[in-house]
Amino acid sequence: MSKPLILVSNDDGITASGIRNLVEVMKKIGEVVVVAPDGPQSGMGHAITVGNTLRLNSVDIFDDVDAYECSGTPADCVKIAKQVVLKDRRPGLVVSGINHGSNSSISVLYSGTMSAAIEASIEGMPAIGFSLCDYASDADFSHTLEYIESIARQALEKGVPKGVALNVNFPPKQNEKLKGIKVGRQANAKWEEEFDQRFDPHGRRYFWMAGNFVNFDKGEDNDEWAIANNYVSIVPVKYDLTAHHAIMTLNEDWDI
Amino acid sequence: MSKPLILVSNDDGITASGIRNLVEVMKKIGEVVVVAPDGPQSGMGHAITVGNTLRLNSVDIFDDVDAYECSGTPADCVKIAKQVVLKDRRPGLVVSGINHGSNSSISVLYSGTMSAAIEASIEGMPAIGFSLCDYASDADFSHTLEYIESIARQALEKGVPKGVALNVNFPPKQNEKLKGIKVGRQANAKWEEEFDQRFDPHGRRYFWMAGNFVNFDKGEDNDEWAIANNYVSIVPVKYDLTAHHAIMTLNEDWDI
Repeated sequence: MSKPLILVSNDDGITASGIRNLVEVMKKIGEVVVVAPDGPQSGMGHAITVGNTLRLNSVDIFDDVDAYECSGTPADCVKIAKQVVLKDRRPGLVVSGINHGSNSSISVLYSGTMSAAIEASIEGMPAIGFSLCDYASDADFSHTLEYIESIARQALEKGVPKGVALNVNFPPKQNEKLKGIKVGRQANAKWEEEFDQRFDPHGRRYFWMAGNFVNFDKGEDNDEWAIANNYVSIVPVKYDLTAHHAIMTLNEDWDI
Repeated sequence: MSKPLILVSNDDGITASGIRNLVEVMKKIGEVVVVAPDGPQSGMGHAITVGNTLRLNSVDIFDDVDAYECSGTPADCVKIAKQVVLKDRRPGLVVSGINHGSNSSISVLYSGTMSAAIEASIEGMPAIGFSLCDYASDADFSHTLEYIESIARQALEKGVPKGVALNVNFPPKQNEKLKGIKVGRQANAKWEEEFDQRFDPHGRRYFWMAGNFVNFDKGEDNDEWAIANNYVSIVPVKYDLTAHHAIMTLNEDWDI
């Protein structure tokens, strides 16, 4: 049997340690093609490049792997991979990451890592974004690798529900072993921003956005609880943003 | 009674015709503050500026309206408006647009217009994104204005369901009057990209992303149907991306 084709992308850029770890795991499972941003694209959400040009260049930085760096966003990378790099070849699986930092809860909206996976799910491909809740560029990914292999193999064998991508977040490496996997929902949490005002050498003000993550969720069936309790969190996410419950409310309460 | 405070943003940039039209309507209803990008930010999805600085400058381009241009994305604009511009003042309504182009169906994911509204909904503020399905920079917005006023007034009076933002799309101006409003769901459709390969004066290749919108949806309860039939479309959208139905599937079918 021929090996499955696996497309790998990320948002930290093609030289990040996280994607290197992910490529090594995927090489055990299938034939790997990498199309990833040529620099950091964190926080890019589901941005695409519409008013500007894109570059795409072959790079030889992984052993025995076709790899391309793209000047665009993670979502661009998946689109250009499909149309220009892979052409008639369809991946059996698309994986993104391993992100250096959490994409749990509300962060899924801002996540370039997950936008690559969601873009692939729009194309009907089984897709998974992997993130480690450790922002360090030299983060230790060792505890995540056997889980990533198992989750990827199951996605290939059992498929992922239609219209769904998996948002997988790992707790940072701890002395205790990971306790297992919890499938749950996106926690009710948000970022409370602070803007640090500074002045440039010409006296003009500018800002750095910073913020604190605030978790309002009291439940145990969500990603924040899982991560805080040393479980791997899987949240299935979808690209249908419709708030179906609100359709009836608006039809009843509003003068439509 | 004091007039409600209304925050206005967009993704086409603060000088676009669409936001000018939106500001004029909002001035009839409340006290308007504008915080919008200093240039085009179309297709930015829910991007935020995490690895770079932000500029924020007061501009005097609307009569009797406090206005600021920001170097960041639409989501950045809402965040900096809340923390730096408005501080302790909380808007009764946040509106974004009027976008020059459709944000119906799958385009909601890529939309900067809607990311401003969704960001406001995360903050618990009633929020609406308005889009006209006409990409021309000199598009005729005249048929949208009375609907926008009515929808905004109802959002202020009746509120918007918690965790929800409204995605309002208008058909392009036609001879026939708009038939009314339909509240519905995001249609099942996607963009099929084509990449136009070219070579720069130095012989290096680059690409323009282009694409065709493909509608797979056979229903009549969705935004594409409404717009094609000359109705105003309202889709309530939410920032909880969890595919709740898939949680059970994964727990049953996968080896978790």
